[in-house]
Amino acid sequence: MSELFIGIDLGGTNIKIGCFDSQLTLLCKTSTPTEADTGPEPVIDKIAQTTEKLLADNNLSYESIEAVAMGSPGQFNFAEGIIISNPNMPLFKNLPLRKMLSDRFEKPAVLENDANAACWGEYTLGAGKGIKDMVFFTLGTGIGGGIITDGKLVHGFADSAAELGHVIIYPDGRLCSCGQKGCVEAYASANSTAKRAAEAIEAGASSSLKKVIEQNSQITSKDVYDHLAAGDDLAKQITDSTAKALAIICINVLHTTEPQRIVFAGGMIAAGDVLLERIKDYFNEYIWTLKKETVEIAFAKLGEDAGIIGAAALAKQLKD
Amino acid sequence: MSELFIGIDLGGTNIKIGCFDSQLTLLCKTSTPTEADTGPEPVIDKIAQTTEKLLADNNLSYESIEAVAMGSPGQFNFAEGIIISNPNMPLFKNLPLRKMLSDRFEKPAVLENDANAACWGEYTLGAGKGIKDMVFFTLGTGIGGGIITDGKLVHGFADSAAELGHVIIYPDGRLCSCGQKGCVEAYASANSTAKRAAEAIEAGASSSLKKVIEQNSQITSKDVYDHLAAGDDLAKQITDSTAKALAIICINVLHTTEPQRIVFAGGMIAAGDVLLERIKDYFNEYIWTLKKETVEIAFAKLGEDAGIIGAAALAKQLKD
Repeated sequence: MSELFIGIDLGGTNIKIGCFDSQLTLLCKTSTPTEADTGPEPVIDKIAQTTEKLLADNNLSYESIEAVAMGSPGQFNFAEGIIISNPNMPLFKNLPLRKMLSDRFEKPAVLENDANAACWGEYTLGAGKGIKDMVFFTLGTGIGGGIITDGKLVHGFADSAAELGHVIIYPDGRLCSCGQKGCVEAYASANSTAKRAAEAIEAGASSSLKKVIEQNSQITSKDVYDHLAAGDDLAKQITDSTAKALAIICINVLHTTEPQRIVFAGGMIAAGDVLLERIKDYFNEYIWTLKKETVEIAFAKLGEDAGIIGAAALAKQLKD
Repeated sequence: MSELFIGIDLGGTNIKIGCFDSQLTLLCKTSTPTEADTGPEPVIDKIAQTTEKLLADNNLSYESIEAVAMGSPGQFNFAEGIIISNPNMPLFKNLPLRKMLSDRFEKPAVLENDANAACWGEYTLGAGKGIKDMVFFTLGTGIGGGIITDGKLVHGFADSAAELGHVIIYPDGRLCSCGQKGCVEAYASANSTAKRAAEAIEAGASSSLKKVIEQNSQITSKDVYDHLAAGDDLAKQITDSTAKALAIICINVLHTTEPQRIVFAGGMIAAGDVLLERIKDYFNEYIWTLKKETVEIAFAKLGEDAGIIGAAALAKQLKD
């Protein structure tokens, strides 16, 4: 029987679970509601039971599991395998989550934060395959990040490295939910992109997006892209400033850890090539003239499976 | 006879050479003009001859040298030990500098860039002693940087990581010599601090520094600090904006590689506690409210010896 590795992506709403072979080929996957308010023990139990059922349904042996790994949002102490806190799952506080997972599966376990797990997935099998230095951004409700230098994830002194959404690009700029002003997240996340469009319309800007607000009483980042594709000027301006903010953060991470490739993931990349090309345009406009930079800026390739793939790859490392 | 390690700091004007024992105690040091226009071979020869004389003068045996290391400005390929270019030493171009050094000394050699060597010096024996994650800034004519994560220097994909002076903190801001706008170097280097003061006076600001321009036809960063100490308002404003720029870059590197300590070195730290305290004030004002940050912001401890100490520590690593 071949060795199996379980990759888990613990989200506030759903838990995704994937089963992989030793080549990191996805054999099967499933998803189940998190129901975090039932508490950590029941959630861990549910993860194990769901995995058991997934494997049984696919004629795979639970005994063949070699290791499990889980990506989760929150603050951690990775050396100890502890989740310190998670704003969206208040019961997951100061818990030995890695040990709980390992005890329940009776297998070695890895704990990682969700953005790092997705970063490691793209690095291992997606947009970062074959390189050693990468920076990763998830452009969703907020902006998360992951940094790999010389083939290793950077965790930082207190396991809070790569909070890249909170790099300040406009001091004294827009207020971010983190309390800082001018974070890249306050401009270029899906939420901020939509919010900036809504604010501009409220301030009197003319736009085909006005009808969207009238109908839905809100705008999403998808609305902005749809109207961009349809030629709306405001949607273009908003996308341009999102792209400029992302280009500035690309320049800044380039001058910091100097990745070979910068990879963007998350809901925002649904905007497609028009966004990617604008990021590259602004990058070329704002980067220094001292020497030509060879960094590649790309979109992620693994979609929503990045988290379980990355987790499985981390689980497999335990056995390498 | 105890083992000796040679640390070399190759500057555009002078070469500093230090001889260290295996505990990295500085036994003796010297300095000699670089005379880079004589060419790389003569410069390497001079380094070896100066080292030979230094050791003889101090009754140390040249044969006891175990390894040598040199920090130098420029662009490098460290894997190959090649200096690609150095704007201030045009003859040092596409040269196997590490091999040249190793061949001339008949010992193993290490090549590192100057800011990284100084960073490694402070990390090993100075302000970064005892920690594993550090970010280092040299505030001189320009701003250089070094990043250590989990006990290792970050070199980046093409050996150009930690060009921290060129992180953009004010997009579309002041023009930097690198061609970008709004780099931290364009605000907070010694040169930029002095230049901003001169510009303000030209624009009509009232300041006791006006007399300095009239007498010397220029202002230095030291003039700014001297007049700050004497209570000049403009000097205070200029120092404040330097401190704010440095606080923003501290926040940004904290959210990137999350160091335990951020260390400032270079001529600017002669400004003393008044500058350090203002950086900390701005850091506390601009940092997020999500959680309390424990990063320490400190000044370097080794002064001008950081480069030779760091180089010697790198040389010693070859034998560890």
